[in-house]
Amino acid sequence: MLEELKERVFRCNFALAENGLVALTWGNVSAIDRERGLVVIKPSGVNYKDMQPRDMVVIDLSGNVAEGDLRPSSDAPTHLCLYRAFKDIGGVVHTHSVYATAWAQSGRDIPAYGTTHADAFFGDVPCTRALLREETEREYELNTGKVIAESFKDADYLSVPAALVRNHGPFAWGPTPEEAVENAVTLERAAQMAYITESLNKDAGRVPQYLLEKHYLRKHGKNAYYGQKSPKR
Amino acid sequence: MLEELKERVFRCNFALAENGLVALTWGNVSAIDRERGLVVIKPSGVNYKDMQPRDMVVIDLSGNVAEGDLRPSSDAPTHLCLYRAFKDIGGVVHTHSVYATAWAQSGRDIPAYGTTHADAFFGDVPCTRALLREETEREYELNTGKVIAESFKDADYLSVPAALVRNHGPFAWGPTPEEAVENAVTLERAAQMAYITESLNKDAGRVPQYLLEKHYLRKHGKNAYYGQKSPKR
Amino acid sequence: MLEELKERVFRCNFALAENGLVALTWGNVSAIDRERGLVVIKPSGVNYKDMQPRDMVVIDLSGNVAEGDLRPSSDAPTHLCLYRAFKDIGGVVHTHSVYATAWAQSGRDIPAYGTTHADAFFGDVPCTRALLREETEREYELNTGKVIAESFKDADYLSVPAALVRNHGPFAWGPTPEEAVENAVTLERAAQMAYITESLNKDAGRVPQYLLEKHYLRKHGKNAYYGQKSPKR
Amino acid sequence: MLEELKERVFRCNFALAENGLVALTWGNVSAIDRERGLVVIKPSGVNYKDMQPRDMVVIDLSGNVAEGDLRPSSDAPTHLCLYRAFKDIGGVVHTHSVYATAWAQSGRDIPAYGTTHADAFFGDVPCTRALLREETEREYELNTGKVIAESFKDADYLSVPAALVRNHGPFAWGPTPEEAVENAVTLERAAQMAYITESLNKDAGRVPQYLLEKHYLRKHGKNAYYGQKSPKR
Repeated sequence: MLEELKERVFRCNFALAENGLVALTWGNVSAIDRERGLVVIKPSGVNYKDMQPRDMVVIDLSGNVAEGDLRPSSDAPTHLCLYRAFKDIGGVVHTHSVYATAWAQSGRDIPAYGTTHADAFFGDVPCTRALLREETEREYELNTGKVIAESFKDADYLSVPAALVRNHGPFAWGPTPEEAVENAVTLERAAQMAYITESLNKDAGRVPQYLLEKHYLRKHGKNAYYGQKSPKR
Repeated sequence: MLEELKERVFRCNFALAENGLVALTWGNVSAIDRERGLVVIKPSGVNYKDMQPRDMVVIDLSGNVAEGDLRPSSDAPTHLCLYRAFKDIGGVVHTHSVYATAWAQSGRDIPAYGTTHADAFFGDVPCTRALLREETEREYELNTGKVIAESFKDADYLSVPAALVRNHGPFAWGPTPEEAVENAVTLERAAQMAYITESLNKDAGRVPQYLLEKHYLRKHGKNAYYGQKSPKR
Repeated sequence: MLEELKERVFRCNFALAENGLVALTWGNVSAIDRERGLVVIKPSGVNYKDMQPRDMVVIDLSGNVAEGDLRPSSDAPTHLCLYRAFKDIGGVVHTHSVYATAWAQSGRDIPAYGTTHADAFFGDVPCTRALLREETEREYELNTGKVIAESFKDADYLSVPAALVRNHGPFAWGPTPEEAVENAVTLERAAQMAYITESLNKDAGRVPQYLLEKHYLRKHGKNAYYGQKSPKR
Repeated sequence: MLEELKERVFRCNFALAENGLVALTWGNVSAIDRERGLVVIKPSGVNYKDMQPRDMVVIDLSGNVAEGDLRPSSDAPTHLCLYRAFKDIGGVVHTHSVYATAWAQSGRDIPAYGTTHADAFFGDVPCTRALLREETEREYELNTGKVIAESFKDADYLSVPAALVRNHGPFAWGPTPEEAVENAVTLERAAQMAYITESLNKDAGRVPQYLLEKHYLRKHGKNAYYGQKSPKR
């Protein structure tokens, strides 16, 4: 069942470790098959090096296990909430990558200081409000998804495909699980660079709006000309 | 004698190097067989790559070598003191991991700023008082254990399974040596994140108490639902 | 066509990843064959581990593809501009290496604080002015090259073989693509060291001019005596 | 000629790269055979991965090549000066490791903040005075050695086996080349930890003198009890 998607989700989870985004078992990637309404996700608390493609768990949009012997990631309700709220995404990533998590702990949005950031994120990456006591005590993982979606009430989740959950860590997403992983990698680098930038010059301004647009649109949208897949200029 | 435990302690010592917690020979893991009253520990000053499972040293709770050609870690009396003081632990780890050691040198507890910390530590990780001159000059390693135990006089050593020894470095422990290593890994990441968090926002508050509880209890205790071993919800 | 140069450019692109200067596909190296007026450059958006020497793209100095199935790096017009402006260079490198990019985002030149810097750069590494809106919206990559060249109007591009493009990141160059990569590696290390130096002592002075000269000239110029190729003293 | 020593010096040079102390070709290790008055040293500007034991160069104490096809490290006169000044050392290491070099650029001694430092260095690691113009322009490498030796006029070079050359970088030494490499590794870690320590607490005090003594003497001197070689207690 969904063998190809399981293989891709497996590879994407593995890529988190390869890119230094996770220690131990702290991270998870999922992907959705929109037609069948099924999500493939990493099993909970399993080491990356012990994992096989067949260990990926298939769940429906209500969180029921459709296939798999292992329990799905405890963060599954957050992933499902994002798939329901963000209709055009195909993959979700959660990590505790060091710099992005530190920004989440500091309670600050990551400012768009340069083109590395702009290549993936069309503006600052938002840090959510803190969850309330009652949101934490009941349906915590679901409410984590809701507070992320709330941050995009007036913003476009596809052009800023990541958020920091206050005191917790980053979530990233994209049209495919592979792109979600790329966004998580870029987020961590941008978070590190922004930290160093502020240390070097506390009055460093954001990247000019026209340069932000140029870089974002160079890679995304109908006139993109970066990479091999976008239409040639 | 205790061949399986030696193999596990060997692997755990090796995991310290794999997780970037040690340089050269600076770190050691031990495990206890409570029934027999014997402890397996890394030999002193041996390189990780030259080490074999059979090189692990077996000592009794008074520190006498029960088996092994090599001398046990010079930190053995600290490990033994912790096994005597903390009745429910099965493994102890000592490292000089960079960020945790820097916090120990700064003389500060590591504040619980987020869920990465809360997943392993139910509150701030304490930094011990400095050892006095006489505690240092006589039975230094034993007194290092005592000053750690002293930090938990009014606290639960199982829910905060680590401490920073002032001007020295971190010790971590757990029900098994594998969990002790995981706690040492989490401690180092939490120490790094806390350092960056304070640089980003010197007024960053601690993680709310209810979120600390949620994350700690999600992984630990009778209602835990993280991973594959905890009872299903 | 230019098989040997393709092999070298391939190896140089790979060296960016090996030296930790790039994540994902963010970096590119090119080399020029001055006699034929042809440039070999990395294809756009291709992963380092999927790349082969035959994937390198050959373009002429106007940017037309002379050979290759893939589209050249979207930064090709910057490379070409630098080859036209700097007559004696044979290779160009662009990366988003973390520390050099943070300096570019901070809008500051990298001060020459020590001999590591001086071994490759005979003075501070300049940060360009920001591109104007019109320079960004039309022929952005070409104008990126022009603003770099502008920074060397009154300076020697061979003795300071790198620049930071404001809010973007570093470009480095050299007589050969291999030397351009070495300069990019040195730039990143010098950028990291300068950042730490300022944190340790905000009044740290630059390296004395005579020591800057000594180190630079020890490796470069007609009386160089570092390495195996320079004439023996 | 000196085949065993060449093998050891080769391995030690390689260990610099393995321990992350060098990029490109920036570092060198030498060892002395005191009886024959000959020194084995890394060739100048050769990549670590291209190097073979037979490439090590044998020189006499005046710097004349006694054996070897390659030119010795350009830093050879510094090594020779240290062998003449410090009669009991058997190996010398020079690197541009990031944190130690940043301290050298900041012009500051590295304070002894903890036991990691104390395990190798019995007190602060000194930063030399800047070389004068005339010392730089003539016999620069020799004078680099002299200014290091000058820093130990009233101090013991064996109990603090390293120094930072102002605006340049670290040199370390020891009774053997292997111990010199260990000291260079410890120096870099201690430099990094000291940097973070000061960021966490700018009023962090040094390690108490009695703890400095305890750790240093635990590993060194006639009552040492760390490792397998020191006499058992």
